[in-house]
Amino acid sequence: MPKVSEAHRETRRRQILDGARTAFATHGYEGTTVPRLEAEIGLSRGAIFSYYPSKIDLFVALAEEDQLRVGELWIAEGFDAVVRHIGDDPEWIGLYLDVSRMLRTDPDLRERWLSFNPEMRERLGARLAEMQQAGELRSDLTLNSLGRFLGVLFDGLAVQQGARFGIDVEGTIALVRSALAPK
Amino acid sequence: MPKVSEAHRETRRRQILDGARTAFATHGYEGTTVPRLEAEIGLSRGAIFSYYPSKIDLFVALAEEDQLRVGELWIAEGFDAVVRHIGDDPEWIGLYLDVSRMLRTDPDLRERWLSFNPEMRERLGARLAEMQQAGELRSDLTLNSLGRFLGVLFDGLAVQQGARFGIDVEGTIALVRSALAPK
Repeated sequence: MPKVSEAHRETRRRQILDGARTAFATHGYEGTTVPRLEAEIGLSRGAIFSYYPSKIDLFVALAEEDQLRVGELWIAEGFDAVVRHIGDDPEWIGLYLDVSRMLRTDPDLRERWLSFNPEMRERLGARLAEMQQAGELRSDLTLNSLGRFLGVLFDGLAVQQGARFGIDVEGTIALVRSALAPK
Repeated sequence: MPKVSEAHRETRRRQILDGARTAFATHGYEGTTVPRLEAEIGLSRGAIFSYYPSKIDLFVALAEEDQLRVGELWIAEGFDAVVRHIGDDPEWIGLYLDVSRMLRTDPDLRERWLSFNPEMRERLGARLAEMQQAGELRSDLTLNSLGRFLGVLFDGLAVQQGARFGIDVEGTIALVRSALAPK
């Protein structure tokens, strides 16, 4: 095999993930066949699967990227920014709905999902703890309860936006603030 | 055709919906083939489709039933009871995730979904108005914002439960109360 530089591999990887994202968004997980992946990515199946051994690995890599992006946004700009981001209806929402459904029936995916981005999980937990410490979050409930509530809201907003019902950005932000405010 | 009584038709309809529910829960929407419907329901495709002309009609009838059941529970016992009900992980959660995903790409289904159970929608709206009137709900936001927030929470809880992550029943109830409490 020819020796390829790390930069080249990185470019290829990006090309593959971007094409796969478009394919999943357009055809759904089930409908994304190998020929469709090849067409969207512009590489042969051999090249694609040398980077990601299967369709589910491509899917997991994209879901992990999305989770990381939302985490970064939350830490940098807060939950309001996350709500607005969902309100922008990015392409990843459809993918997200596919994941939710597949997690139900695929224990292996569920396990991978729960071990995504461990560093980001820690940073999110630390940020919540810091906010609680600073009196910006209620302290009569555990951090776990607060974090899970934000997760539920995120999923619910993704479903509503995913179904193309739109979301009530300002109302949601006001209600979440009241939910989390110190008592 | 032989004349069949209304009671007989009702029994058949129940048999069909119950079998279809099991089939969808087990195999997902895509995986529910006509032979699987026949096997689960115990009737021929001719008999089944004389009641519900297609797979999507069966699916819609079940989704409409679920929506009605949750609405009744909400009106009779409040949102806490709905959260507990989701926590029980009933079989319909998988179906619900399938709906969310299909709403995204099927404008016809979306239209049907939005016109489900018009009477229940009115009753839910009236109940929220009554609670706001009685000072049990905040009045600085519109009923529409409050209702949509509850819808988002419901969807998010369904996703978490659907993915088999479980839900934090008591924490959620406490947070929702704070969100909705009069200011």
